[in-house]
Amino acid sequence: MSTGSFGFLGLGIMGTPMAKNLLAKGFSVTVWNRDSAKCASLVEAGAKQASSAAECVEASSITFAMLADPAAASAVVFGPKGVLEAMTAGKSYVDVSTVDDETALKIGEAITAKGGRFLEAPVSGSKGPAEQGQLIFLCAGDETLYSEITPQLDVMGKKSFFLGAVGAGARMKLVVNMTMGSMMGAFCEGMALAEKSGLEQSQLLEVLDLGAMANPMFKLKGPSVMKRAFPPAFPLKHAQKDMRLALALGDQLGQPLPVSATANEAYIRAKGAGHGDSDFAAVYEAVQTKP
Amino acid sequence: MSTGSFGFLGLGIMGTPMAKNLLAKGFSVTVWNRDSAKCASLVEAGAKQASSAAECVEASSITFAMLADPAAASAVVFGPKGVLEAMTAGKSYVDVSTVDDETALKIGEAITAKGGRFLEAPVSGSKGPAEQGQLIFLCAGDETLYSEITPQLDVMGKKSFFLGAVGAGARMKLVVNMTMGSMMGAFCEGMALAEKSGLEQSQLLEVLDLGAMANPMFKLKGPSVMKRAFPPAFPLKHAQKDMRLALALGDQLGQPLPVSATANEAYIRAKGAGHGDSDFAAVYEAVQTKP
Amino acid sequence: MSTGSFGFLGLGIMGTPMAKNLLAKGFSVTVWNRDSAKCASLVEAGAKQASSAAECVEASSITFAMLADPAAASAVVFGPKGVLEAMTAGKSYVDVSTVDDETALKIGEAITAKGGRFLEAPVSGSKGPAEQGQLIFLCAGDETLYSEITPQLDVMGKKSFFLGAVGAGARMKLVVNMTMGSMMGAFCEGMALAEKSGLEQSQLLEVLDLGAMANPMFKLKGPSVMKRAFPPAFPLKHAQKDMRLALALGDQLGQPLPVSATANEAYIRAKGAGHGDSDFAAVYEAVQTKP
Amino acid sequence: MSTGSFGFLGLGIMGTPMAKNLLAKGFSVTVWNRDSAKCASLVEAGAKQASSAAECVEASSITFAMLADPAAASAVVFGPKGVLEAMTAGKSYVDVSTVDDETALKIGEAITAKGGRFLEAPVSGSKGPAEQGQLIFLCAGDETLYSEITPQLDVMGKKSFFLGAVGAGARMKLVVNMTMGSMMGAFCEGMALAEKSGLEQSQLLEVLDLGAMANPMFKLKGPSVMKRAFPPAFPLKHAQKDMRLALALGDQLGQPLPVSATANEAYIRAKGAGHGDSDFAAVYEAVQTKP
Repeated sequence: MSTGSFGFLGLGIMGTPMAKNLLAKGFSVTVWNRDSAKCASLVEAGAKQASSAAECVEASSITFAMLADPAAASAVVFGPKGVLEAMTAGKSYVDVSTVDDETALKIGEAITAKGGRFLEAPVSGSKGPAEQGQLIFLCAGDETLYSEITPQLDVMGKKSFFLGAVGAGARMKLVVNMTMGSMMGAFCEGMALAEKSGLEQSQLLEVLDLGAMANPMFKLKGPSVMKRAFPPAFPLKHAQKDMRLALALGDQLGQPLPVSATANEAYIRAKGAGHGDSDFAAVYEAVQTKP
Repeated sequence: MSTGSFGFLGLGIMGTPMAKNLLAKGFSVTVWNRDSAKCASLVEAGAKQASSAAECVEASSITFAMLADPAAASAVVFGPKGVLEAMTAGKSYVDVSTVDDETALKIGEAITAKGGRFLEAPVSGSKGPAEQGQLIFLCAGDETLYSEITPQLDVMGKKSFFLGAVGAGARMKLVVNMTMGSMMGAFCEGMALAEKSGLEQSQLLEVLDLGAMANPMFKLKGPSVMKRAFPPAFPLKHAQKDMRLALALGDQLGQPLPVSATANEAYIRAKGAGHGDSDFAAVYEAVQTKP
Repeated sequence: MSTGSFGFLGLGIMGTPMAKNLLAKGFSVTVWNRDSAKCASLVEAGAKQASSAAECVEASSITFAMLADPAAASAVVFGPKGVLEAMTAGKSYVDVSTVDDETALKIGEAITAKGGRFLEAPVSGSKGPAEQGQLIFLCAGDETLYSEITPQLDVMGKKSFFLGAVGAGARMKLVVNMTMGSMMGAFCEGMALAEKSGLEQSQLLEVLDLGAMANPMFKLKGPSVMKRAFPPAFPLKHAQKDMRLALALGDQLGQPLPVSATANEAYIRAKGAGHGDSDFAAVYEAVQTKP
Repeated sequence: MSTGSFGFLGLGIMGTPMAKNLLAKGFSVTVWNRDSAKCASLVEAGAKQASSAAECVEASSITFAMLADPAAASAVVFGPKGVLEAMTAGKSYVDVSTVDDETALKIGEAITAKGGRFLEAPVSGSKGPAEQGQLIFLCAGDETLYSEITPQLDVMGKKSFFLGAVGAGARMKLVVNMTMGSMMGAFCEGMALAEKSGLEQSQLLEVLDLGAMANPMFKLKGPSVMKRAFPPAFPLKHAQKDMRLALALGDQLGQPLPVSATANEAYIRAKGAGHGDSDFAAVYEAVQTKP
């Protein structure tokens, strides 16, 4: 292991372009993926390849991980030839996967128990921003580590936040996604009322785009609503899951969230009607009613 | 009356700058205001002054009106020496006041019964945009008239829409304001959950501003929420009134609007707690609870 | 006019059995109905017949009125040959119709301005209780008058309440009907969840009927829900109208009512889907979703 | 073990009177409790005492269990000297504790894997009904076993239901408690609106008690609301937990439950304001607002 060597675990839709961006800026990167075939394009771009997560951690001072879900994130850390087997004092682990509060805490404790440093850093943004280095990192955990990896986060993203102790990253993501889900619910009610009122939805979109509410989401999703076509960018069932988790957080903290709870029921109605795999804007299908 | 002469009734916060913008572009304008003192600055800027609404209409081919509310808008039309007394074929009336559906229809019918042409054109935007000629006009009624006054609307605003038969302007305004009220409710729940979760509200604002939901309203009202200071730009009681009217429209059309109905109850809670005269972002006071 | 002579205006489904019950107990009753044919069965039972509302009031010391709606109630009082023409000091008027707050106040003021006494007394109960003398009277206005007519109210009903100044009767009715509408909404959600959960709705009804929530409404409406058959006892559109008016009352008083507002939107959904003329239990059609 | 010998595990507020009722009818009962001191009064009443759950099962053909919560119910089955160690073909286990869907399934599978028979039988009713033998049993699982223990259930309760496969008992309880929580929410909104409207809450209670909505719960909790005193019969935090679980069930099944979701947020508001340990009628504290 040389100082300033980086590991990258998980080479999916997100992880591959993120690791490529690190390589392109001249950083030394060792990669690993469960299906090793996915390592090829990275090796071609100059990466070293490890045969296990443990070997990757061993070869790196700081290891990033972008795994699919909490189960995968846990398996890579706690499983055989996993991260923990090679974690020691002086090494660091940065989990940029989207996991829940609890999983983040569990992983963080295991890493620090081994003497390592841990940063939770879920991202806001999908495939496009990952490729363009325009992600947003919602970081929490070891602040010194956060400062040290600023150059790497700056390569992969346009902005990063340090939010506090481990768990804060996951919570911020829930708050953001709850707000987004409720805002979409409000938007769909406006679109539905416009149609029932004999107004052109396209004109409502234009009016909204000229005023204080103008935002990329209305602009992007408005035409979907008009065409009633919802190819999945952010699947409705995932949006609804995030609202459920945010409502559970409010429940636990004694914070009533009636607008979001009501919006959540609209998503449940849409999901129950078979729109779970459509884009979350398909909540419109549960809002509008036949004329 | 000469062709291309304009009347302007109502010289308040909005009407004064709108009429001034017309004058500044060289249009011939005759003004009238119930309190005639308010005519002085316009006369100085080149306007003629009429001694009654009827006289103003008589002197003009097209008369604009910007009155405070439905009662004032009706009084100026139907009252003694009012608009109707001078309305004849060949004359036009453009009401840019914010009135309800029914008042717009009643005025429109009275104007057309006299042979005149009518356009309902409520504006989106407040004092600043009025001064800068950046208003948005939501027009409905006589489409030929709409086309003819495009040069004048372009002087006073940045964009105008023609929405259909009289009433459509009022309905569009309700749809927009309902969407705004619910979106603000969603935003305040996000801000409240952030605080209860131990997150910095300022960081949530930054994250929101970098993503798909970024919009001027969150940017403008976020700091108000953080400071819990709500100087009235759009008073909460007016925002709640618009939500009530929009919900009544949904009721009448058989369009359920549960998210907006729930948000409306939060505004009622805020109003009941004494925040009716604060800015509508003060709905936050009804959303957040003590820690 | 002799002391203790009663008038009765309005001989519909409710008024006819109410007046008959008065006659059966030996009270002297003069009747009037807009369509005079409906007086026949009453005259046969011993009633005198008046040719106008005014004549009926003239012949009676205390006149009851059971009219269809606020418009009819107002017409009978303010119209030609109406109640007001014959109202004088020493006479009393008891309006048992269901009218709104404002109509009750307007009629009350007109009666008392003529020197008469006024009692608002909307009833709870429909055709069956009217026939069996089992109505409930929600009275407000002149308390002395209320005391004097106790014998008559006891003949027509099983219980009467004195609630305060005019308007209180109408408000009590709204509160009761709002509670009923929301409780029905809660019930329908329970029934829908039972079905989705693979439970027998009939077993849920049995369990509910054995516990603290046991009530005649669940017992009566449960089988309707199971059969999805909703013959109108209390039409959904009327139930929804009462919820709308109750929510407006809460709005005016600064009392948030989110559960009722959400239930109201379910009624609007049901109404929009064509169930307005069905029984109000048809809100179930808006609650349940296809499996 | 003799045929017709019964075991009883868990001698708390509910279990003690239930076991006593069995003894009083002459059934042979062996008891066990974690804190053995609680066995004394039962032994005095004729019970045999076992030194462990396993010993109790060994001595009995059918064993009942009334444990505090899912954790306790699981510990008694799976722990050392627990139920499973003695479970064999020919023996039966009837869990009358209130546990969740999943715990019921897990216990049921373990019992049947050992060759035993299992019945889930959560009760509706609290201390009083337990003493008076007036409980309601919501049974699911082995139907033959259900039939065989009818005499015992009839001694402890007034009614029992067989609902289907294991899990149905837990689901029925959630449906019932969700309906109850929402109905209480509706009731509290009615009471709050009455007060704000200047009506006497006591009169509203009387009116409700005379009509189709009359039920023991309004009668019992109405005075609590009037006095704003909420000694815990069913603690609010437990009522809210059941609503949360019922909403999660609806979520999982695609059944939207907006009225209950909105009521749930009122309970969360009440819980957040410190009323979690009060009776669930204390949701009134979250509904009413200062005048």
